[in-house]
Amino acid sequence: MKTFHILPPDEQIRSQLQAKIDNLTKPKGSLGTLESLALQIGMIQQTLSPRLNHPQNIIFCADHGITEEGVSVSPREVTWQQTIHFTQGGGGVNFLCRQHGFGLKIVDSGVDYDLPYKLGIIDKKVRKGTRNFLHEAAMTEEEACRCLEYGAEVVRQCHAEGSNLLSFGEMGIGNTSASSLWMTLFTGIPLEQCVGAGSGLSNEGISHKLSVLQQALENYTGDHSPMDIIRYFGGLEMVMAVGAMLQAAELGMVMLVDGFIMTACILAASRLYPAVLHYAIFGHQGDESGHRLLLEALGAHPLLHLGLRLGEGTGAICAFPIVDSAVRMINEMDSFLGASVTKYF
Amino acid sequence: MKTFHILPPDEQIRSQLQAKIDNLTKPKGSLGTLESLALQIGMIQQTLSPRLNHPQNIIFCADHGITEEGVSVSPREVTWQQTIHFTQGGGGVNFLCRQHGFGLKIVDSGVDYDLPYKLGIIDKKVRKGTRNFLHEAAMTEEEACRCLEYGAEVVRQCHAEGSNLLSFGEMGIGNTSASSLWMTLFTGIPLEQCVGAGSGLSNEGISHKLSVLQQALENYTGDHSPMDIIRYFGGLEMVMAVGAMLQAAELGMVMLVDGFIMTACILAASRLYPAVLHYAIFGHQGDESGHRLLLEALGAHPLLHLGLRLGEGTGAICAFPIVDSAVRMINEMDSFLGASVTKYF
Repeated sequence: MKTFHILPPDEQIRSQLQAKIDNLTKPKGSLGTLESLALQIGMIQQTLSPRLNHPQNIIFCADHGITEEGVSVSPREVTWQQTIHFTQGGGGVNFLCRQHGFGLKIVDSGVDYDLPYKLGIIDKKVRKGTRNFLHEAAMTEEEACRCLEYGAEVVRQCHAEGSNLLSFGEMGIGNTSASSLWMTLFTGIPLEQCVGAGSGLSNEGISHKLSVLQQALENYTGDHSPMDIIRYFGGLEMVMAVGAMLQAAELGMVMLVDGFIMTACILAASRLYPAVLHYAIFGHQGDESGHRLLLEALGAHPLLHLGLRLGEGTGAICAFPIVDSAVRMINEMDSFLGASVTKYF
Repeated sequence: MKTFHILPPDEQIRSQLQAKIDNLTKPKGSLGTLESLALQIGMIQQTLSPRLNHPQNIIFCADHGITEEGVSVSPREVTWQQTIHFTQGGGGVNFLCRQHGFGLKIVDSGVDYDLPYKLGIIDKKVRKGTRNFLHEAAMTEEEACRCLEYGAEVVRQCHAEGSNLLSFGEMGIGNTSASSLWMTLFTGIPLEQCVGAGSGLSNEGISHKLSVLQQALENYTGDHSPMDIIRYFGGLEMVMAVGAMLQAAELGMVMLVDGFIMTACILAASRLYPAVLHYAIFGHQGDESGHRLLLEALGAHPLLHLGLRLGEGTGAICAFPIVDSAVRMINEMDSFLGASVTKYF
């Protein structure tokens, strides 16, 4: 079993960081969230002059056995089609990466298709989609461990390339179902409050999805340990994201968390290593039913509320300029001492 | 009296715009606010391929006679000090302008100080601060008309420089008081719900501010026409912003609205020319008490909620990348026809 060494940032620098922020030429607290972000990033990087270097977005892609049960309105083939489509520059995630200077890594975690890796897709395929968790565990322990390790590998690669900020996204038809089960099992929030429309189910479709997931929960006979829940219901792309998040935290990187599925992943990660949350910035609260409850359960305050529900990391990347603003604020604003301005309130 | 010619955008292009947005490779509606922004900007520019050119932020700066009554915790001298400080690059607005590629115009609308215009501050000074509206009109009709005209002039200059998107901000100790009075008079919302802490008043300070403003309302004997309310209580920088907004709308420019004071200005502008609202994007909902109510009264859905209360246009500029994302989305994303992806939902 892959293990990580994740500590909360050292507290010693906090008071110096706060003093620096409080002495910038503005009423104290008047830059709101930019100030709390600057503090968080300064703590993560243990410096009064934090920097964001070579941001990258990693999209983990995989298929889900549970789609056999008709829990998604979108056909399974969309997973592989979109995975290829991301390499061609015309997807939702692509224009955002270009806009904000993000590198993009597209990872085949377990897509049910023979993908053309020559296009630049990273081959970390563990198997062609998970098993159907209505009847059996989605993956074996060994497969789950490989997911964690592969996710960590991709992050170490980014770190070696000079990145200190990552966002994570996913493509996987069926993965809101897996996320809803992680959420209910890890938070105790009733399943019906964790289940939503996914990419666009009708009310009838949501009822069917709920009854399938309810049955899957009833059929589950595991030991309810975090790793067992993770492997039994998880998607390959989701467990890989968990490994990626844990590795990013271990390396002291800033991570931007995307929508419902990625929030479920950091929830799972936090059940393995609670300190991972110190390194997470929540980018966006989407419309997927349950996402708000999930964020509340994590005590998270997402930066944006733009009604996005595309995944791919889009909500996280959209939030990047605000994080960038926070870092620029602490580095570029004058202090009251340096500028000839009466300190005001 | 300066007049403007402001029409709502022609509706004819709406269905084509919506069809283009709906055929991008994503579930319909899944890019949320980016989709509604793309529609709005396409309507404003009357094109299926909108562009944002040379964005600029204009800060109007002026002093307020009402500060004699102790309605602000910050001293009056902060207005001129900060106006100069903006020219030196170390203010809150400066790093945001650099980050997002905004030009910055700093306008002396009526600062009570002999400013060094050689630093690049634009001289549109109407007088050295308004009169104290507790006892008399803040400005004469002639002064108010000059404010509208001067604000319009600055916008025409930006337009001539190639800008088609502007944000507006302000610096003026005392201007939350003026804004609260415009708000209560234009919306009917009771004064006590329109008054907040400004740059940091205590509860006692807020009570005093409220009683001063209540008295000012009682002393007011004008005709309650929009222009009379505007000139009686307005700040010179605020009326100039109203003129700027109206000119921007007349020229078919996109405008980003900042915090409480700029929202009060577009409210006032909309009471003169309701169609101005078609051209406005609300950047940020701040913490100033009453801002939420004011936005609701305008039917506005601000893009960000970051707890900013600095003014200067900072909330509007922070929202720019989202607007930029919307334009990139409609221009850069593939359609389902162009990409080989099954249309999904």
